Amino acid sequence: MMSTQPARGMRDFLPEDVRRRDYVVGIIREVYDRYGFEPLETPAAENIDTLLGKYGEEGNKLVFKILKRGEHEASGQADLALRYDLTVPFARVVAEYQATLPRIFKRYQIQPVWRAERPARGRFREFYQCDIDAIGSTSVLVEVELLAAASEVLTRLGFKDFVVKLNDRRLLTALLTTAGVPAAGHTEALTALDKLDKIGVEGVMKEFESRGIDAHSTARCMEFFTGGGKEEGVLDRLQRFLGGAEMVETMTTIMSMAQSTPAAGHVRIDPSLARGLSYYTGAIMEITVPDLPGSLGGGGRYDNLIGMFLGREVPACGFSLGLERILVAMHERGMFPPEVNQSFVDVVVAAIDENAQAAAIEAATDLRKAERLRVDLYPDVVTKMDKIFKYVDQRRAKFIAILGSNEVTAGTVTVRNVAAKTKETIPRDQAAAFIKRSLTD
Amino acid sequence: MMSTQPARGMRDFLPEDVRRRDYVVGIIREVYDRYGFEPLETPAAENIDTLLGKYGEEGNKLVFKILKRGEHEASGQADLALRYDLTVPFARVVAEYQATLPRIFKRYQIQPVWRAERPARGRFREFYQCDIDAIGSTSVLVEVELLAAASEVLTRLGFKDFVVKLNDRRLLTALLTTAGVPAAGHTEALTALDKLDKIGVEGVMKEFESRGIDAHSTARCMEFFTGGGKEEGVLDRLQRFLGGAEMVETMTTIMSMAQSTPAAGHVRIDPSLARGLSYYTGAIMEITVPDLPGSLGGGGRYDNLIGMFLGREVPACGFSLGLERILVAMHERGMFPPEVNQSFVDVVVAAIDENAQAAAIEAATDLRKAERLRVDLYPDVVTKMDKIFKYVDQRRAKFIAILGSNEVTAGTVTVRNVAAKTKETIPRDQAAAFIKRSLTD
Repeated sequence: MMSTQPARGMRDFLPEDVRRRDYVVGIIREVYDRYGFEPLETPAAENIDTLLGKYGEEGNKLVFKILKRGEHEASGQADLALRYDLTVPFARVVAEYQATLPRIFKRYQIQPVWRAERPARGRFREFYQCDIDAIGSTSVLVEVELLAAASEVLTRLGFKDFVVKLNDRRLLTALLTTAGVPAAGHTEALTALDKLDKIGVEGVMKEFESRGIDAHSTARCMEFFTGGGKEEGVLDRLQRFLGGAEMVETMTTIMSMAQSTPAAGHVRIDPSLARGLSYYTGAIMEITVPDLPGSLGGGGRYDNLIGMFLGREVPACGFSLGLERILVAMHERGMFPPEVNQSFVDVVVAAIDENAQAAAIEAATDLRKAERLRVDLYPDVVTKMDKIFKYVDQRRAKFIAILGSNEVTAGTVTVRNVAAKTKETIPRDQAAAFIKRSLTD
Repeated sequence: MMSTQPARGMRDFLPEDVRRRDYVVGIIREVYDRYGFEPLETPAAENIDTLLGKYGEEGNKLVFKILKRGEHEASGQADLALRYDLTVPFARVVAEYQATLPRIFKRYQIQPVWRAERPARGRFREFYQCDIDAIGSTSVLVEVELLAAASEVLTRLGFKDFVVKLNDRRLLTALLTTAGVPAAGHTEALTALDKLDKIGVEGVMKEFESRGIDAHSTARCMEFFTGGGKEEGVLDRLQRFLGGAEMVETMTTIMSMAQSTPAAGHVRIDPSLARGLSYYTGAIMEITVPDLPGSLGGGGRYDNLIGMFLGREVPACGFSLGLERILVAMHERGMFPPEVNQSFVDVVVAAIDENAQAAAIEAATDLRKAERLRVDLYPDVVTKMDKIFKYVDQRRAKFIAILGSNEVTAGTVTVRNVAAKTKETIPRDQAAAFIKRSLTD
């Protein structure tokens, strides 16, 4: 027998799952629309050269590669690859359509991405990202808008306790330089630092050592991140280590401007925030909630990526909400409104007699003409009422409209209220109004 | 410089495209929901064995294959494949979750599929299908419901002249048998017959010949399809060739029951309709419109497919609307309502002075609190008004809310009506109400 499971690390979404996902995606789209972002979609597969080399060594390995079509399949040659994130395809799109896009272009994109990860709990090979990006401006208002929009989404979904961590890639670079880490080792050091939350200071120190960073530089870095035992604010510590508030001006401006947006009260400067991806060049940000490992989303400024496609630099900044983690957090906290799991069928029409089937179709057609009424037609002749009761229970239907020979002769229909366990035989042309009235009672 | 085009045969959807697609998909979802179908989604990639062998020899070649992850990549071994249609994944899902699904399960699924076709005009390697399927019943009410739902979608979209062609695989089999085509040649004969519309009777005769079907059988078949010059109805011809109206009972029942649904007046029996896919076992159907090559959708009964996964037969029937052809037809006929292309931003907030940027953010936040107002914040300081005029024109915004030092000092904002070319300076806390009032004027 053939396996019936989905491919490893991928998931089937049954109706209840789809409805929960649609509820969250609906709010994300609505907020992003209202913030002036425009929808964009790109193909699932890209030419393999578009993706390779954009995500670092580790990323290259995690890109799913597709065999060239036709007789080439035998050679094992891959010419396409599955989308690994939404940022690189967006950069390609900006380069391709530059002549027709506004100079400042704000887009949102909600699509799945694929990564050939080792499957693990909560780590999937197919998952949705919900990205907003704005190109064409170096103004910090871009960062503020992204954080405002993402914060409004989370607030609308019911999150109250999220934290927006803010840092700047340039500050990390300055810190590593000051600590004596040579420029060639920065990427490796950042990759290690990105795990600070997970593996702690000792873990990062070990990684630094294994990556050949000398003990003195490592000690200087760790002193910075742990504060060296001193009681001082983050900004003071930055001042003490990097000497000069101008290094942190971007961050403090973003933070103060965010105070008049839905991000107000959520933003914290976190000098240890590194973000794994190699293409960031300025502000980096991440949103977390207590008790949930990992982040609900993250992003940053990447002023060089589009240039790799276009040949000239175009400033850009983006933020990506991770749909899967948002859903996990909402599920664990019971944050879905009841209507997401309520009935999705108002009435099931059923014939209890073969000669009543034509009338059942007519009745279903009539009921469907009533605005918003959701009408299911049971296709088999109902010979045992138990069967239809089980079915309407599984469908969470509120009414059953039954047609037998008596009803056909009299031009009526018997409407049964499932919850109230009442039934009433009424003229067929009054059934829609009767059910709508009962629904709003 | 790296290529910036999407992969061959695949497409980027810019904001205008996405909006048109969302409009159509929105109506499809709404109708399917109201007909009692439930949403389902499956992963883009399936285990390769799930797909291979389900679509015939030709189909196997057109399945995109994905290299096994990690070190296996070098061997050229593929263990995953991209979804080729939505029916086979659905059959797998039914087998996997049989214990929890209702005995009669009606689902809709709107997702892209991928086929490694040779690219050609209007033929894509990535395209959306919008499927409805119902399992668990052999009643013709299932076929009637599918045709009713698909017809309601098309009617709601504005199609008036669509034709629903109806045939039955068993009837084609009987005809081929009567004509003397041996059972082993039926699949090949059906593949050839499926092209009757495109290549005509002579073309099909040539194909029959090249597939080794003898001249006498070919002549008998062609006589049937051309009517042999006789003036007679389709049903009479079926009677004459296959002797017995019982062969066509299913079709005539479907046709007469469809008369009391939105499919009324659209259904025609077409004995030459073959449908390429090999898994059909009963009724087959296809929707076409005049002047558009190919079909807007098609489907049929496939009572054996789920058994390939489950080990016991489960009756099933489905219909798939092709989103891409619907969009082409609607575009060519100018069927999109004007609001699909109208403005998607109400107001662009812009600072004309660096010191006004903080106030601009505050103003944007305030405006966004007004229900339904779509507010874009221009991130750069506007030094030349031409620039912002060009931008609001590209964004099709209706108002500009301008903030400079005067406005900051006075707590006001200057609101410019783009179309009317008027402007007015008003207190900031009245801006939202002012704009909303002007929008509804």
